[in-house]
Amino acid sequence: MAIQESDLMQKIVSLSKRRGFVFQSSEIYGGLKSAYDYGPLGVELKRNLMAEWWRAMVHEREDVVGLDASIIMHPDVWKASGHLAGFSDPLVDCRNCKERFRADKAPKVEAGTDIDYLEGGKKGGKKLKAKAERSYVCPQCGSPDLSPERQFNLMFRSNIGPVDVLGRITEVVERERNLTGADLRAKIEEVVKESAVYLRPETAQAMFVQFLNVQQTMSMKVPFGIAQMGKSFRNEVTVEHFIFRSCEFEQMEMEYFCEPGTQGQWLDYWVEQRMAWWRAFANNKDKFRTRAHEKAELAHYADRCYDIEYDYPWGWGELEGVASRTDYDLKKHSESSGTKLSYFDQNKNDPATGKPGYRYTPYVIEPAAGATRGLLVYLIDAYHEEAVPDAKGEDATRVTLRLHPRLAPIKVAVLPLVKKDGMPEAARKVVDTFFKAGINVRYDEQHAIGKRYRRHDEAGTPYCLTIDGQTLTDGTVTIRDRDTMKQERIAADRALEVVQERLRKI
Amino acid sequence: MAIQESDLMQKIVSLSKRRGFVFQSSEIYGGLKSAYDYGPLGVELKRNLMAEWWRAMVHEREDVVGLDASIIMHPDVWKASGHLAGFSDPLVDCRNCKERFRADKAPKVEAGTDIDYLEGGKKGGKKLKAKAERSYVCPQCGSPDLSPERQFNLMFRSNIGPVDVLGRITEVVERERNLTGADLRAKIEEVVKESAVYLRPETAQAMFVQFLNVQQTMSMKVPFGIAQMGKSFRNEVTVEHFIFRSCEFEQMEMEYFCEPGTQGQWLDYWVEQRMAWWRAFANNKDKFRTRAHEKAELAHYADRCYDIEYDYPWGWGELEGVASRTDYDLKKHSESSGTKLSYFDQNKNDPATGKPGYRYTPYVIEPAAGATRGLLVYLIDAYHEEAVPDAKGEDATRVTLRLHPRLAPIKVAVLPLVKKDGMPEAARKVVDTFFKAGINVRYDEQHAIGKRYRRHDEAGTPYCLTIDGQTLTDGTVTIRDRDTMKQERIAADRALEVVQERLRKI
Repeated sequence: MAIQESDLMQKIVSLSKRRGFVFQSSEIYGGLKSAYDYGPLGVELKRNLMAEWWRAMVHEREDVVGLDASIIMHPDVWKASGHLAGFSDPLVDCRNCKERFRADKAPKVEAGTDIDYLEGGKKGGKKLKAKAERSYVCPQCGSPDLSPERQFNLMFRSNIGPVDVLGRITEVVERERNLTGADLRAKIEEVVKESAVYLRPETAQAMFVQFLNVQQTMSMKVPFGIAQMGKSFRNEVTVEHFIFRSCEFEQMEMEYFCEPGTQGQWLDYWVEQRMAWWRAFANNKDKFRTRAHEKAELAHYADRCYDIEYDYPWGWGELEGVASRTDYDLKKHSESSGTKLSYFDQNKNDPATGKPGYRYTPYVIEPAAGATRGLLVYLIDAYHEEAVPDAKGEDATRVTLRLHPRLAPIKVAVLPLVKKDGMPEAARKVVDTFFKAGINVRYDEQHAIGKRYRRHDEAGTPYCLTIDGQTLTDGTVTIRDRDTMKQERIAADRALEVVQERLRKI
Repeated sequence: MAIQESDLMQKIVSLSKRRGFVFQSSEIYGGLKSAYDYGPLGVELKRNLMAEWWRAMVHEREDVVGLDASIIMHPDVWKASGHLAGFSDPLVDCRNCKERFRADKAPKVEAGTDIDYLEGGKKGGKKLKAKAERSYVCPQCGSPDLSPERQFNLMFRSNIGPVDVLGRITEVVERERNLTGADLRAKIEEVVKESAVYLRPETAQAMFVQFLNVQQTMSMKVPFGIAQMGKSFRNEVTVEHFIFRSCEFEQMEMEYFCEPGTQGQWLDYWVEQRMAWWRAFANNKDKFRTRAHEKAELAHYADRCYDIEYDYPWGWGELEGVASRTDYDLKKHSESSGTKLSYFDQNKNDPATGKPGYRYTPYVIEPAAGATRGLLVYLIDAYHEEAVPDAKGEDATRVTLRLHPRLAPIKVAVLPLVKKDGMPEAARKVVDTFFKAGINVRYDEQHAIGKRYRRHDEAGTPYCLTIDGQTLTDGTVTIRDRDTMKQERIAADRALEVVQERLRKI
């Protein structure tokens, strides 16, 4: 059944709430629009997704090891990386309707032309006309009467240590009564900066900062990678599309260090690897594509970059970036920290001198994926509706989350047909075998069997095992497939093995 | 070999760095003393520990489901929970030597007595004498000349949204030129509070705030629990004992909701469960004990509480708290949010009226464990030294991390005896079977075999598989046990099965 693209997001948000995938953060307090909580099914889906990434990127490779660095790092890290000076969006206030917005996302107009708009941006407001001084207008009321652009840094700032920052500001402001404007602000900033720390806006920098520690303790030989998963924080001006862009989100990033000159081949390799990984768990593999960055679009440190994009309900958008970052980061941190972040290959000749032994700053390929964004992509990919008559034979819509079994929050539901005749006991015996094997199973005896099947279809549970009268006589159970709804009878004591076999497939 | 308790921590910190378990955060920038990075082995150990907790607390139970909430929650959560007003330490400045310290941790004296100390706290400083006005003195110089105590809130504060907070403070301070002291401070505080958010100091509150969403979406029946693992942040005045107390740490918490009157039995149940869990992975099971809180020690919301303590090198200290929190939290959040956080049991009679149907606010038992602290405990528990002659027959110390195989970062090392004669190829074939099974394996061909064994002893790798000449003729390999150093020959194609069998044991 084809679903209107415009309805799809609404259905996913609604199912996420209803089934316990994603809740609004602090919902009973009116919510925090920029953060989300992952409910009982959401946390399992996220864990599974991230575990698959870790398995493919770290455990199944000889050349990549993991890292789990702190979220609060030394502030000099962000100075060296350029985030303190440059990780910002251009903010503008509309003088007409007071909207605050990102200049780079505002509607474009031709500078110098006359623009019509309503006073205060209100319906029935006086009609006004003014010349556009810039190439954009207010996204809310269309007015060209705008404040100057100012750079708004996206890092969350806090203060560390036993310092009463507001007390210190009060003291300094009282002492410096004669300061005004920019001078006063500079003074306040000085006080704050003494103990300022920042929440990391990306996990990546830790891999550069800990490059030597990791390389040396694990005796890694170039080419090798350091992988990290975890939370990052950006004080986004515009949060959008549910969990697509939020202030608190989770990343899966890897920095792959290689010899200068080989970065091109490794970039191609990683784009291909990552594309194959995303597609392996998807139903609609043609909804993923790669897009090479234009020269003008490249970050100043990158020599090439690809986005892995997904065809979201609102159009193609980024899911992962694979960038060739040159030796920019290691060199920056070398300079700033005074610690030489380089690699010595004793088996190679220095290309400059021809002599044995080659010391160089490795080049870096960075596949940087959004974990929470990945979760959204697989929810969209999995959402499926079909017309299936209900238990009474009436028209009904069956909603299924066709999640890959490896990603599905619950792998198996074990359902006694009725809550008596020893069926719950027989069911719990089956449940127990799955507990012991570490497979997430759910015992479920509430409501009629048809309703339970539908509930697990919506939860994305790939297999339902039903314990019925026959189980008690011949020891068999039915195993029902979520997508085909087909049922087979198998021996109860082979159920674990059958499910394990199906979960191994990828 | 008995290790001096005083040396043990130093050895563990050193091994942690040397083998890639724990690095100082941002080390090349001089480090951030209050945060740590988990290296390639540390991240695996932490993942394994937390996965075991999740398995025991969520996956292997019908009555507990998971949650993964945001770190930045609505500020009203912390107002309702009492953290904004009360989650603080009493700070004092020494007027003599300028040390800032926690009053509750300072050396005790008898108030009113004369105290000797040195001017400025410096050796050779003038000898001074003063009456102690309070029952403690400066921990640094012993002076009783102290500033008033002030409460220092331990939550990290930040600001959210496109607000230039320092700009706003500047504006307000300029406008309110006539304000001084407390009034000025109050004004500044007002500006900051408009957009203030806090990093969670514990994961627990999210389970109360999302109680209804979780209970309803998963149709949970009391008694049931909600479990969460994740990072928490406390701006600790005193960080101590390596990762024991740091500003950024990881928790594993569960809130178990039960009927009023049953909390006593559930508290006992959970203390026993949690104790058994910690001991299951430990070598020295008598290093864990429970300690009931004294009445005076109980938090205001708790009716009983136990600490699960570990015998650290510096003495017994907390590892996990299991508290009976009554209905305090749910009631507080009900009042503050206006959302009724209660439970309706249609199968029970209301004890007050005797009529069918019983609505009540559940009581809560909270087993709250430190994940990073648990990691430290198992490192301490596992550290082992013994005198074993080295390859040349000379006296040497063998260092082993006797980690439980389920916790060990690397489960199997696969070692070709030499780097030729087809041994690397044969080894990689074995490695591949472990990759496919999702078991963390490491191929290692660097250095002599004895040195590699020692390296993996220190890393805590329980099994080494060695590929030698015989492998190539009869398809067998040796499997070496980390703790006993005993080797057996087994068929290479049975290696996976043998290791899997040993890993199943707990």
